Amino acid sequence: MNYRNFPMVPRVVFGRGSFSQLNDIITPKRKSINAPFIFLVDDVFRNNTWLTSRIALAYDDRVMFISADQEPTTSQVDDLVESIILSTKERPSGIIGIGGGTLLDLAKAVSIMLTNKGEAKDYQGWDLVKNPAIYHVAVPTISGTGAEVSRTTVLTGPERKLGINSDYTPFDQVILDSELTKDVPTNQWFYTGMDCYIHCVESLTGTYLNAFSQSYGEMALQLCEEIFLTDNLSKVDAQEKLMMASWHGGMSIAYSQVGVAHAMSYGLSYLLGTKHGIGNCIVFNHLEEFYPEGVKTFKAMKKKHNILLPEGICANLSDKEFDIMINVSLSLEPLWENALGKHWKKTITPKKLRSLYEKM
Amino acid sequence: MNYRNFPMVPRVVFGRGSFSQLNDIITPKRKSINAPFIFLVDDVFRNNTWLTSRIALAYDDRVMFISADQEPTTSQVDDLVESIILSTKERPSGIIGIGGGTLLDLAKAVSIMLTNKGEAKDYQGWDLVKNPAIYHVAVPTISGTGAEVSRTTVLTGPERKLGINSDYTPFDQVILDSELTKDVPTNQWFYTGMDCYIHCVESLTGTYLNAFSQSYGEMALQLCEEIFLTDNLSKVDAQEKLMMASWHGGMSIAYSQVGVAHAMSYGLSYLLGTKHGIGNCIVFNHLEEFYPEGVKTFKAMKKKHNILLPEGICANLSDKEFDIMINVSLSLEPLWENALGKHWKKTITPKKLRSLYEKM
Repeated sequence: MNYRNFPMVPRVVFGRGSFSQLNDIITPKRKSINAPFIFLVDDVFRNNTWLTSRIALAYDDRVMFISADQEPTTSQVDDLVESIILSTKERPSGIIGIGGGTLLDLAKAVSIMLTNKGEAKDYQGWDLVKNPAIYHVAVPTISGTGAEVSRTTVLTGPERKLGINSDYTPFDQVILDSELTKDVPTNQWFYTGMDCYIHCVESLTGTYLNAFSQSYGEMALQLCEEIFLTDNLSKVDAQEKLMMASWHGGMSIAYSQVGVAHAMSYGLSYLLGTKHGIGNCIVFNHLEEFYPEGVKTFKAMKKKHNILLPEGICANLSDKEFDIMINVSLSLEPLWENALGKHWKKTITPKKLRSLYEKM
Repeated sequence: MNYRNFPMVPRVVFGRGSFSQLNDIITPKRKSINAPFIFLVDDVFRNNTWLTSRIALAYDDRVMFISADQEPTTSQVDDLVESIILSTKERPSGIIGIGGGTLLDLAKAVSIMLTNKGEAKDYQGWDLVKNPAIYHVAVPTISGTGAEVSRTTVLTGPERKLGINSDYTPFDQVILDSELTKDVPTNQWFYTGMDCYIHCVESLTGTYLNAFSQSYGEMALQLCEEIFLTDNLSKVDAQEKLMMASWHGGMSIAYSQVGVAHAMSYGLSYLLGTKHGIGNCIVFNHLEEFYPEGVKTFKAMKKKHNILLPEGICANLSDKEFDIMINVSLSLEPLWENALGKHWKKTITPKKLRSLYEKM
């Protein structure tokens, strides 16, 4: 038996308003005046001076606003890396991702690809990265994905949607300032929060679970239930607790895996470009047979917050399109094995997946 | 407002039997054949080949067996550092602490003092350490103190019992193998487990608490209640869960502090040499007025496991001895402020502390 030597984020700040400390934190990491910091910022913050005025640019530092409307792709990472290399005199001092899961995953992938040859798609998989990434910092502005703490960066490539899972993927520094999440629209708040809830359910019911992952998963699950099912919390408390739920939820995957919902939602995302949070919700809503308790609680949360999920998104798909989704989903073997054990192929057939997708 | 940029242990292995991976983990960290690894091992493991046979010595590597019968002292650290410097050709590649809180705190302090001038007592306090410590690894063999994850190493010095609290204190690597805790005697298991329970109660009821520390504290507290109050768990599950409780309990202090029990038990320990775990229990048992719920639950746990605490340990103390304990305890201002707020001096007087100590 050989256990993973799990890399944890070595530095974390938690606190309302702690984003203002960003400059003090990164300044000692500047390698030279020719080695800039590159800030990858969700473009919802363009013209938002409340946030952008606190990004102190010096020398050749650069802010790149990036839309999170699309799931991040390997070619987008390659383009960003090329643009950064062409516009900087030296390798950057660091990459700072400011946004949700999309921006954080881009920051992780770009920081890896600045020190590793080839294209991002070459590193989709497990432990394929050769060289340490450059210094990279996460500033989450929406809570739930766990991207701030995980050792993966999930990218849609030409052949599949799959993470770059490596010991060099985790951030060197995370700043957890719940105030940055105050203006997230309700739907987005719900979908991304449910990403946390769903991966905790998948982790806690999975066959890979151990006491390490269980304790983190249970904590995150309890926090989600408090946030999404009760009226006990102030807005600020709810924002702070959801930030912690996301953190612990990400940690719960350390020795575990996600499961059926993620495996199927990757298929949706690959074919239809469905965003990860809403995709998980659309799928999970139909997974009673795999997660009876979890789906029941999910539906109660959905009702409480008047969330209407899209329906019939697979209604007009061709056989070929179904097959693409099904193949992407089936290729995620560790997820299925975690969910259903070593003999998962006995129950999960292309036909079975098609019947599930047809409900969505 | 300025929030602490908290250092987390950057690498952790969790798993039954993972101690066997120690050699594979540290080998890449060897700096040269003249820079040995020094293993500080609790001397209860002397002649225990089940454990010691898995410590692979090469070149000038050295095992030093150390008794944990006494709380660690600053002069003990200085002696160890001198012995290591005199017997090694180069600065060691790393220090590996294998044992409970005493051995782990010694490993942390020795690794700091190998790169910092002067004596260990010079660094008791907050953020006094100038240079990064050498690579240091924790292998806990008893669960509860949180020493494996905290940024302190608590030492008894000539003037006070106080931690070396610094960003260089935390371990670079932790190996969490619950199998190493299988032979801990019941009393010791209880006292050390209660260290975790008590510092969670202190953290969760303290004025410094935030959502980060709260979520870790609640997780650890729930685990303790499951372990010490129910009969649901197998021996292995209970050992694994207590290891996680210790871990999360240590994390809960990140943005918080301990409180009355620790402040008073440091006094006992300084004067009488009372070990930390049992000292906390002796004190906490009499703190209903500060922690009514926590003390009630503690007493239920104590009863369930037939633990008899020593009584009357302060019965024959002189006025001068009481004053020494009281002064050590009162000097721990952050602990009192966390417990009772900024105006703690209004209620906590020497007279009040004496009346409490007299009950013990």
